[in-house]
Amino acid sequence: MNLDLNSDLGEGFGIWRLGDDEALLDVVTSANVACGFHAGDPSTMRRVCAAAAERGVAVGAQVSYRDLAGFGRRFIDADPAELADEVLYQIGALDACARAAGTRVLYVKPHGALYNATVHHEAQARAVVAGVRAFGELPVLGLPGSRLLEAAERAGLRAVREAFADRGYTPEGTLVPRSQPGALLTSTDAVVERAVRLAQRRELIAVDGSAVPVEVDSLCLHGDTPGAVRHARAVRAALVEAGVVPGRFVAD
Amino acid sequence: MNLDLNSDLGEGFGIWRLGDDEALLDVVTSANVACGFHAGDPSTMRRVCAAAAERGVAVGAQVSYRDLAGFGRRFIDADPAELADEVLYQIGALDACARAAGTRVLYVKPHGALYNATVHHEAQARAVVAGVRAFGELPVLGLPGSRLLEAAERAGLRAVREAFADRGYTPEGTLVPRSQPGALLTSTDAVVERAVRLAQRRELIAVDGSAVPVEVDSLCLHGDTPGAVRHARAVRAALVEAGVVPGRFVAD
Amino acid sequence: MNLDLNSDLGEGFGIWRLGDDEALLDVVTSANVACGFHAGDPSTMRRVCAAAAERGVAVGAQVSYRDLAGFGRRFIDADPAELADEVLYQIGALDACARAAGTRVLYVKPHGALYNATVHHEAQARAVVAGVRAFGELPVLGLPGSRLLEAAERAGLRAVREAFADRGYTPEGTLVPRSQPGALLTSTDAVVERAVRLAQRRELIAVDGSAVPVEVDSLCLHGDTPGAVRHARAVRAALVEAGVVPGRFVAD
Amino acid sequence: MNLDLNSDLGEGFGIWRLGDDEALLDVVTSANVACGFHAGDPSTMRRVCAAAAERGVAVGAQVSYRDLAGFGRRFIDADPAELADEVLYQIGALDACARAAGTRVLYVKPHGALYNATVHHEAQARAVVAGVRAFGELPVLGLPGSRLLEAAERAGLRAVREAFADRGYTPEGTLVPRSQPGALLTSTDAVVERAVRLAQRRELIAVDGSAVPVEVDSLCLHGDTPGAVRHARAVRAALVEAGVVPGRFVAD
Repeated sequence: MNLDLNSDLGEGFGIWRLGDDEALLDVVTSANVACGFHAGDPSTMRRVCAAAAERGVAVGAQVSYRDLAGFGRRFIDADPAELADEVLYQIGALDACARAAGTRVLYVKPHGALYNATVHHEAQARAVVAGVRAFGELPVLGLPGSRLLEAAERAGLRAVREAFADRGYTPEGTLVPRSQPGALLTSTDAVVERAVRLAQRRELIAVDGSAVPVEVDSLCLHGDTPGAVRHARAVRAALVEAGVVPGRFVAD
Repeated sequence: MNLDLNSDLGEGFGIWRLGDDEALLDVVTSANVACGFHAGDPSTMRRVCAAAAERGVAVGAQVSYRDLAGFGRRFIDADPAELADEVLYQIGALDACARAAGTRVLYVKPHGALYNATVHHEAQARAVVAGVRAFGELPVLGLPGSRLLEAAERAGLRAVREAFADRGYTPEGTLVPRSQPGALLTSTDAVVERAVRLAQRRELIAVDGSAVPVEVDSLCLHGDTPGAVRHARAVRAALVEAGVVPGRFVAD
Repeated sequence: MNLDLNSDLGEGFGIWRLGDDEALLDVVTSANVACGFHAGDPSTMRRVCAAAAERGVAVGAQVSYRDLAGFGRRFIDADPAELADEVLYQIGALDACARAAGTRVLYVKPHGALYNATVHHEAQARAVVAGVRAFGELPVLGLPGSRLLEAAERAGLRAVREAFADRGYTPEGTLVPRSQPGALLTSTDAVVERAVRLAQRRELIAVDGSAVPVEVDSLCLHGDTPGAVRHARAVRAALVEAGVVPGRFVAD
Repeated sequence: MNLDLNSDLGEGFGIWRLGDDEALLDVVTSANVACGFHAGDPSTMRRVCAAAAERGVAVGAQVSYRDLAGFGRRFIDADPAELADEVLYQIGALDACARAAGTRVLYVKPHGALYNATVHHEAQARAVVAGVRAFGELPVLGLPGSRLLEAAERAGLRAVREAFADRGYTPEGTLVPRSQPGALLTSTDAVVERAVRLAQRRELIAVDGSAVPVEVDSLCLHGDTPGAVRHARAVRAALVEAGVVPGRFVAD
């Protein structure tokens, strides 16, 4: 019984910092590293890759629309062919940083608005997968049932299914929209309960109290919210205590 | 008797174009491809890499300061450690594009102000070499006698010596500053004579008329000036006629 | 009987150029000047403002999403409050350039995807108008019937109605989508006929041959297509010959 | 007996924050607001301008090289004419934000590497002043004896002389280089003593213990260092207690 723990890291830029990369790297097993398009300058990328490699944490490329000003959180109606090229560019840039640290990019996860768009946007989902395939046979991390994971599987790539420790779910297993009550789990207890149940039973408790089976390969721990590090540490400790081994979904 | 011909390519960005990449790729044997920091969006990079690969032209990373607004032509007093990371990032991004086109980055050449700075600026020269070494054992293209080529050799990298078909030289073998008379060869005849003499005798005629021996592994043909393509084609034709084989300095 | 002629100008960036600003400034009466977000560096902005001022051409702010890589041609789901601030920023920057040239920003026109979005997107239309109002009481140039012009009028701003010399129209007076036949008028004759008819009768011939009445305050002449300058000159000459005075819709 | 207190503000970008703008605005009398080139997105600029206007704090344009990645802290060998245009652009953009908040830009201060360069670099000093003059008759804030203030005075602009609360000075009244001992005053006591002595006697104690007379119109309080807000509050409180009125050097 094990579970991968992933988090978004390296999301500073130049003088600016976001989140506590070092602390989270002691908790997670997979690091989604920003590649310069929504955040992440080359020095930050190398530093995070080196710190991940030291700890045996898997390095993934957190690819994004080109949007530093919007932190990649705004949908951009990008041309799919150009989007694929941008994904390829970002993976290549990060891979060079990872290899300089003795590892390599082991998977790809879209960031922010691109993550959300590729749940439903077929052309952009295919574009992300095309960019990944142009680079190589890397697994793609995303939402179960998303166009992105469907496109990844069709392309012969491993589709890695992600669940969220701190998001509310509907009885149908989809995320409660952020505009509705129950969208976020704020108490550490609730987050920990979610994580342990997911790891042990591959199920979660929806907003209406019902138990929903979910297939999950990796659990996302957010790093940029207040209390993020505290939540993340509590999740890991609880998993270990419950006999779950936090472990990477992908080998070197 | 052969000679490598290199030119700066892929120097558009988004909607903007600069030079005639396709025409120059039919002339040169090595393409210095912009990597996104002074020019070069991911789609342009892939297109140029594909067109180069089709023709058997070697792909090199034309790395630059991060300066789209200044086209990389302004000295930036960058921190050497950060500069090395930026070089690594750019090579990695281009390498992904090159590999998607069935080839790979085969050498590195600094662009514009970074090229000029690393003639004398020891710390930046070392930084560029450190970035290249962090990526791998790639040859470095530069000015003979430059700090850059010295640092490359010390680091165990191949130093590729470049001469210019259209620049005036002093009797000491250095470039005539652009602010002085004779800095540029503007006639096609002069450019062609320079190229053939360099290829056949490894010497050139300086501004004072004296013959100067030079060691040269690659001849730079500029692509962004009026008449550039015409000059480049004339040079290649004259070399072939003189029995010189235009040939890459580096194998795949 | 007169008609304003407007065109997008100053759309280079750094070393890159687009279109022939000088030639178009001899034709148009209003210049939509790029403000740095999709194109337009400060030096280009000052140069175009000075050239416009010399000729008595009105300077307008061509405001855009922040998207140099996409030339402002991609919809961005920008937060309306932030979009308003970006519009204000761009107008202010251009106004400083215009005042240094002895004139000032006299109107605002959204560029590219922002122009298209604000035809229907109520929140972004209001955001553009809010940005304009935060600056002052400037006229807003747009498509008749657009949310943008409705919002401008509600806010007490002058709504300036634009028609296109080179676009096909439906019998209902809307633009033929670019994906359909008849979307573009490519012959100079057709473009000239359109312009003269609009100026003389405030009507145009739709794709089905029917005459459609349109209200028009300004005629847009594109500057970045092949033959753009030739078309523009032909339109102006034909208007003058037909007794129409090309004249600004706005005074200093 | 009064003294202006200035600080760099609005130095976040997009999602990233730097320093505590609100807290510092309760301490200072003049706010050097970032204009988008080294930091400062339009929404941050408007927010800081509004908060400054509410408190009667003067808004100044903190103009910079275009260098978000380097936070404007790296010398760029910018063309003086282009630099002047960039200065004009930044002032105009901020002025629009300031006017929307009911005030306007009242002075200009170069940021970071541009501040340091214009101490000695005549061409860039003139360029900054040319940019300011192209906008209007604004005071320029800088180091006493700098080329910048000399150029400002020659151009008929008010030269506002700045001293630093937390930097070590030589007996000659110049700053101790950051690489040498005594470059920074780290204790709150020392910073406070410096401020009160400057306000009361227009002198400071140099690293060798000697008293040095200085002419000072404004005292710079840094905002981005640990303890910055605490130091700033202590300085203001001590000044008030000593009978010094913290007051703007410039009226509306």
